Parts: sequence; C-alpha cells; structure tokens
Amino acid sequence: MSVLGIVGLGLIGGSMALGYKVASIENRIVAMDVDPEALDYALDRGIIDSAVDSIAELTQVADIICLCTPVKQLASIIPALSDYQGVVTDVGSVKVPLIEATEELWGGLPGNWVPGHPIAGSEQHSVRAAKADLFANHKTILTPIDGVNPQCLDEVKALWQSLGAEVITMTVAHHDDVLAQTSHLPHLLAYTLVDVLAGFGDEREVFEYAAGGFRDFSRIAASDPEMWHDIFLTNKTALLQRLKTMIAALDDTASMIENGDSDALMVKLSRAKAARDYFADLQQADRKLP
Amino acid sequence: MSVLGIVGLGLIGGSMALGYKVASIENRIVAMDVDPEALDYALDRGIIDSAVDSIAELTQVADIICLCTPVKQLASIIPALSDYQGVVTDVGSVKVPLIEATEELWGGLPGNWVPGHPIAGSEQHSVRAAKADLFANHKTILTPIDGVNPQCLDEVKALWQSLGAEVITMTVAHHDDVLAQTSHLPHLLAYTLVDVLAGFGDEREVFEYAAGGFRDFSRIAASDPEMWHDIFLTNKTALLQRLKTMIAALDDTASMIENGDSDALMVKLSRAKAARDYFADLQQADRKLP
Repeated sequence: MSVLGIVGLGLIGGSMALGYKVASIENRIVAMDVDPEALDYALDRGIIDSAVDSIAELTQVADIICLCTPVKQLASIIPALSDYQGVVTDVGSVKVPLIEATEELWGGLPGNWVPGHPIAGSEQHSVRAAKADLFANHKTILTPIDGVNPQCLDEVKALWQSLGAEVITMTVAHHDDVLAQTSHLPHLLAYTLVDVLAGFGDEREVFEYAAGGFRDFSRIAASDPEMWHDIFLTNKTALLQRLKTMIAALDDTASMIENGDSDALMVKLSRAKAARDYFADLQQADRKLP
Repeated sequence: MSVLGIVGLGLIGGSMALGYKVASIENRIVAMDVDPEALDYALDRGIIDSAVDSIAELTQVADIICLCTPVKQLASIIPALSDYQGVVTDVGSVKVPLIEATEELWGGLPGNWVPGHPIAGSEQHSVRAAKADLFANHKTILTPIDGVNPQCLDEVKALWQSLGAEVITMTVAHHDDVLAQTSHLPHLLAYTLVDVLAGFGDEREVFEYAAGGFRDFSRIAASDPEMWHDIFLTNKTALLQRLKTMIAALDDTASMIENGDSDALMVKLSRAKAARDYFADLQQADRKLP
C-alpha cells in the first residue's frame, strides 16, 4: 500500500483520489490545493484522508506524488521536489513545460519522474465533478525518458492500472503531436467557431436555430478557457503545425465548393465518413475491455 | 383530418409519418419512395397507411404533400405538382434549389407552397431510425413567400405543431444564411478535420488516442456524405462567405498563439465560453417547453 500525494485537487486530482480509494479502502491519499474549500469538500466525503499546506509536508508522507495542477504552475512547484526520493508523476496535457522546467533546474527529468497524461476528462473542472471511474477503460499515456528508473515506471503504471486505465508509453514529442491533433486542434476549432458565430448577426440570434450537430460541436468550447489558453500557448509548435494543415484543408474544401468540383468533394466527405466510422468502431471495441 | 402525402420515406419523412400517426390514430398517411423496402417496412409497422408509385397518384389522394427527398431531387419532382391544388411543403436544409426550380418552371413559388425546414435530425437517415418525437420541442422554420395563401400557411403550421415543433417564419435568404452558420459550417469543419487527422501518421494511429471532445466533434462527420455534398454545393454562396470568415478567424487565433499574445487569446476563449454558456442556457430553456 502506497500513500498517494496529490497536488491540485480538481476534477483529475479528485477523480484519482476517489478512484484510488475505491480500488482499496486501505489506500491512503494526502492532498494539497490552494483552495481550502476543495480540500474540505474532499475530506468531508472521505475522498482524501488528510490535507497538507506545502509540498515539503507532502514529500514527508507520500510514496508517490502526482501533480494535477494546471501545466503552467509546474515550474513553480517542482523545485520543492528536488530532494524527494519517492516516485513523481503528473497529468499534464502538454509535456513541453515540464521538460523545460526540469531542464532548467536539473538538466533534465530525474529517473524517478514518469510524466503521464490520462486521456479522459470533461468540460467540468472541480473536485465536485470527480468520478471514481473517470479513467476506467480510457488510455493513459506515459512518456518516460530513456534513463527512467524501471521500478518507478512500474509503480506509475500500477497506479493508473488500479484506476482502470489502459497504460501506453511513447516519447514526449510524439505525445505532444498526437494530442495537438486529437484534442488541442478540435478545441481550438470549437472555441473559434463559437466565437465567430457569436459575432454574426443580431443578439446571437443564430444560437436560437442551432441543432444537435452544433450542440455536440460546441460542447467542448464550454471547457475552462484558462486551461485551454495555457495548453494552446505551451503546445505552440505542434499545434501551429497542425492548425496550418487544417487551414490549408479548409481552403481546399472551399475551392471544391467554389468550383463546383462535385467528385472531389464527394471523395473527401466519403473518406472522412469512413475514417469516422473506423474511429467509432475503435471506441466500441474499447468499451468491451474489462 | 387531412391525408398527408410523403415523398421520400427516410428518417425525416418516416418520423413525420410516425409522429402524425401518433398525434391521432385517425390521421392517414400515404407515401412514395424509390426504395420498396422502406415502404414495406413502414407499411408492416403501421407507420403509413398506403404506398403509391407516382406523384400523380399521390396528388389524387393527399390533402397536403411534404417533399422529404434529398434537395437535389426536388427539381425532377416538382413538375408533376403543376396542377396540384392541395398544400405543398418540404423539409430541405437549403432553400435555394427549390426556389430556382420553381422560378424556372412557373416564375416562382405558387401560393400553395410553404417551404419548411425542421431543425432536427440525426446522423442516421433511414426510416428504420424514425422517431415519433423527432421534431418535438425543436424549431421548424417556414419560409413563406409574400404572396403565400394564408390558409396553406396555417395548414403547414398546424401540421408541424401537431408533431410538437415550435414554428418560426423567416425569409429564404435569411434561412440559408442562418443554416450556413449553425449547421453547414460545423459539418464542413467536422468532415474536414476528420479527413485531415486520418491523413496524418501511420494507420490512423491518432484515433487510438482521441478522447471525448473529439468524439463529440466528429460525430457529425458520420452523417450521410451524399446529403452533405448536396447541401454544401447548393448553399454555396452563404456557406463560402461564412467559411471565409471562419478561416480568417483561425488565422487570427494562429497569430495569437504564434506571437504569444496571451491577453488577446484569453479574451477570445472567454468570449467563446460565454457565448457557449448562453447557448446551453437557451437549450435548457427549450427543453422546459411543453
């Protein structure tokens, strides 16, 4: 039984705590957060066992520490972990800031750090939305460095597996590019579309007539703007490259419509539907996992 | 009690038939479709009362005819309605093709035609997916011409209201522009994004890591490519104008990221979230309607 230390008790940190507690009632969770109400809420409901005020305190009691704060806060947190001998992981959607901060501080990630990223979440971001099974049957990507301590890697794997996640490993750069495509670019499109539509016409009239397709599309623009602001700026290189490809593809679709190029448009839409159907099949297969 | 004649028994036509039958068991529905299996399916389940082979036959028995075929087939259907004295309506997502076809044939829409468009649907398109309440608590937009026969307008309104829809009227041009924004542009973005992602990397690997946000986003790319091909090409003018605004807005977002313009990006994302929250409130208010 390891004592899990959580820094940042929001949706992700809260769901990890709750899931870890549900996995075994004997598991112990210690948390810290800048918001005392989040800690009180979690203590009252038995989601965590105790709360601490500083990273220094946390390093005294935790066997494994998971950083669940917004990515831009990592740089200010990690110096306090310099002498920590336990296992460290995080849940950042972008890995660049963590890598840069550790390079500046220690010349790179230490062997006891195993960067992680659960591919799960929702547009809510408070511990009040925490769910014990938020990560169950979802992938968690770990991006260990070459010199990682194998035992630390195993412990982080085991932590995520105890939450029901399917653990996958890849390089930091590949992670940031894959996420730019599958998550950051769709969010950027949704935010920009909703902003564009809100700017047209009188008093947001268009929203009166928006149907299901738009509802699905725009749901992800209900996510926390501050979090996405940070993600877009920190994953700048990969995101901009993919965004430019997307803009070129939209220019291409526009040309097909402008020129009435019926065949090319039909090929493009059919190809997209085939890819989407393939994706839907994958999702269905995933849900059949234990 | 009017006899409803339906041309094209897919998701929309089938749901109209089913909803009309549920509204009153004494309502009579006659349908035609190029696919005999769709007719057999609906006859077997009592969704329609009888099937006919031609528009000519339909005009003999129906008091009100609703055209539920893909929009591009309207031009070939409407000549057969030249002498029909009953009420005619349709469900086309784009009104331009109907207007153009009637202008060519009769110099414009006759007074007994009331173009309509229910803002409801799903990514399925067969009569097998028909739902009696598909239109309930959804808006249906009617775009009557200035010289519309008021009694015909009232009958079409009453038809949609009997299906539970909230009926709204606006001009054809305004309808096509509003739909370009709220429906056609989001679909174009979703199709193009899925196609772009499918083209990156090895063997569609990215889809393995796509999470909920992308699932919602891409669901609308599962819609019928042929239908959307027709919509994109027929609503060319309004759609291209809005698409060009969207591309410019994406260029603007890209510049903010490239230049690290944190404040401007935060303003844009927050504005989008506020608009999206406004939209979500509207949706919630709508669901409280009787």
